[in-house]
Amino acid sequence: MAETLLSTPRQDGFRMPGEFEPHQGTWMLWPVRTDTWRLGAKPAQDAFVAVALAISEFEPVTIGVSAIQYEHVRSVFPSRVRIVEMSSNDAWMRDIGPTFVKNDEGEVRGVDWGFNAWGGLNGGLYFPWDQDLLVKQKVLDMESKSRYDCQSFILEGGAILVDGEGTLITTEQCLLNENRNPGMRRAEVEERLHEYLNVEKIIWLQQGLMYDETDGHVDEVAAFIRPGVVAMSWTDDPESPQYERLNAAYEVLSGTTDARGRQLEVHKIHIPDPMKISDEEARLIDRARRSYNRATGTQFAASYVNFYICNGGVVMPSFGDRHDAAAYEQLCGLFPERKVVQVNTREIALGGGNIHCITQQQPK
Amino acid sequence: MAETLLSTPRQDGFRMPGEFEPHQGTWMLWPVRTDTWRLGAKPAQDAFVAVALAISEFEPVTIGVSAIQYEHVRSVFPSRVRIVEMSSNDAWMRDIGPTFVKNDEGEVRGVDWGFNAWGGLNGGLYFPWDQDLLVKQKVLDMESKSRYDCQSFILEGGAILVDGEGTLITTEQCLLNENRNPGMRRAEVEERLHEYLNVEKIIWLQQGLMYDETDGHVDEVAAFIRPGVVAMSWTDDPESPQYERLNAAYEVLSGTTDARGRQLEVHKIHIPDPMKISDEEARLIDRARRSYNRATGTQFAASYVNFYICNGGVVMPSFGDRHDAAAYEQLCGLFPERKVVQVNTREIALGGGNIHCITQQQPK
Repeated sequence: MAETLLSTPRQDGFRMPGEFEPHQGTWMLWPVRTDTWRLGAKPAQDAFVAVALAISEFEPVTIGVSAIQYEHVRSVFPSRVRIVEMSSNDAWMRDIGPTFVKNDEGEVRGVDWGFNAWGGLNGGLYFPWDQDLLVKQKVLDMESKSRYDCQSFILEGGAILVDGEGTLITTEQCLLNENRNPGMRRAEVEERLHEYLNVEKIIWLQQGLMYDETDGHVDEVAAFIRPGVVAMSWTDDPESPQYERLNAAYEVLSGTTDARGRQLEVHKIHIPDPMKISDEEARLIDRARRSYNRATGTQFAASYVNFYICNGGVVMPSFGDRHDAAAYEQLCGLFPERKVVQVNTREIALGGGNIHCITQQQPK
Repeated sequence: MAETLLSTPRQDGFRMPGEFEPHQGTWMLWPVRTDTWRLGAKPAQDAFVAVALAISEFEPVTIGVSAIQYEHVRSVFPSRVRIVEMSSNDAWMRDIGPTFVKNDEGEVRGVDWGFNAWGGLNGGLYFPWDQDLLVKQKVLDMESKSRYDCQSFILEGGAILVDGEGTLITTEQCLLNENRNPGMRRAEVEERLHEYLNVEKIIWLQQGLMYDETDGHVDEVAAFIRPGVVAMSWTDDPESPQYERLNAAYEVLSGTTDARGRQLEVHKIHIPDPMKISDEEARLIDRARRSYNRATGTQFAASYVNFYICNGGVVMPSFGDRHDAAAYEQLCGLFPERKVVQVNTREIALGGGNIHCITQQQPK
């Protein structure tokens, strides 16, 4: 039976596994917000379907959907995809879903972090986020997994990367942002990560990507391929607004050892050319006072490292960009034992994220 | 993975187990309709909580609740009770939930019957019933159980009793009612029961209880204690409006053999004294045009056989009636290996049913 625990994963011998470790399955949510997603969210829904179907070739997928869209969503997917009623304010399961932790006996539990829609009333992306706040508990309750209550600490899953062996990568821009845990100093943040994810070494990048709405989530900048090996976003263009920050990130990553004392092996994956919301794309996005402004010409972040690793596979973005093919070849090389599948996710990127942002793995 | 099957349980070697066989757990829903339940459903919610807690001492309980009541309901129950988001129009899981079937290898599947709120636009109890219609599929999908699609046949779980060994008891009043499957003759109804529940012998009672809103559900009249043994509602009072129909039911039950050729052993359990909705009880029930009229003085059915058998236990109604104690003693005698727990459920009976009506077992 699922219990709510006031201890911490570290105290109980639980750690967050790497994404490349075996999964029980993948959780996603269904996009419907018309102020995030253009054209009544229909093009984004198509992209979510493509991503979910791709993942479901590798492992079980569960999609949470509000009551009003249930029949439609159930009819869109084959029966191998599990559809459950689960309300949310938007569809970023990486950030809204629980972080699963596991012990050496194979028991899985979940961490229920605080959440404020990426900045609350101080730069958050929409209001309210009341239903998002309940998703972690609903997922854990449905799966009868015990829950670590850490709601006093705001953290999104996309703001951290772990290797499952004691190393975590994050950004100062997000985790030390005044709009997340105001007044909390670096040492206190590290203590939370230490206790709830059971990591020893925290690698701090200064910034995430420019034009990333999330205040610099690390999962647009880098990804663990396996312990000791990292893929990172890169650009050769000194004029790119991402150039300086990616160079700085490279300096940190390539100059650091992980929790086990290994020098990180860093692979650069060139980002797509700069992207803007077109006039046609902006035209039918609904306006809402407290929501992020997606006007024509708004630049948005795009990166190939926002891929998702699943059992035997990797599902990665394409954008119809000249760098798509090279990124695919690189990932095929980095994951020789997995099948890499590329899905065009421009419609998801328009909403502020990509494949990694809309998925959350539940370890086996 | 859950599939939708167009074959039948009989074809595939699945049968509906008796309620007394081992359970995986119990499903319930959360009552909120203010036209069914007085005082904003708060007194009924208390009674549902008492029933759920009683069952949860014996086996896992899952409660489906709409998004808007989720936080409240989660906070009401201890963590051993699983709360999942699941919308419904009312809270009668016996009638709204799937009927689970099982094969000799222990695989469990579910039957997704049609449902029209106990009579549709011709005497049904409320309108619409759109969310109720989806509950069976949602439960089965959540549990990754395959689903037999029998939505072309309207059947409520409270309209049938089975012994798990080929015998089914039902009433003509309900199953042959023109407001359920109009135009369908007895032989066609029997064929459906035969195919989807895998029963051989169908015992037809003519009527259920007077003042039962459901058009005579059999689960207010009788219950299988175990194969070959039945408890039934009874009255010694020739003036009781239930007298004639219960005598007729007794004649049928005591004069019939079951699918295995056994003479049924029938135990009479005296019903409570006649009950009416009081003025105070009626005063704060909201009115709705298509809903059952619960005005002051409305008589309602009450019976002790609407109990629920769970792993090692039986949870049965009390009403604050002079027959409560005798019924309890009788059930203790009939279930020597189970602990019998009595819960005052007048608030549930006011809404038209009792413990059996608000529960649905999932076999182990």
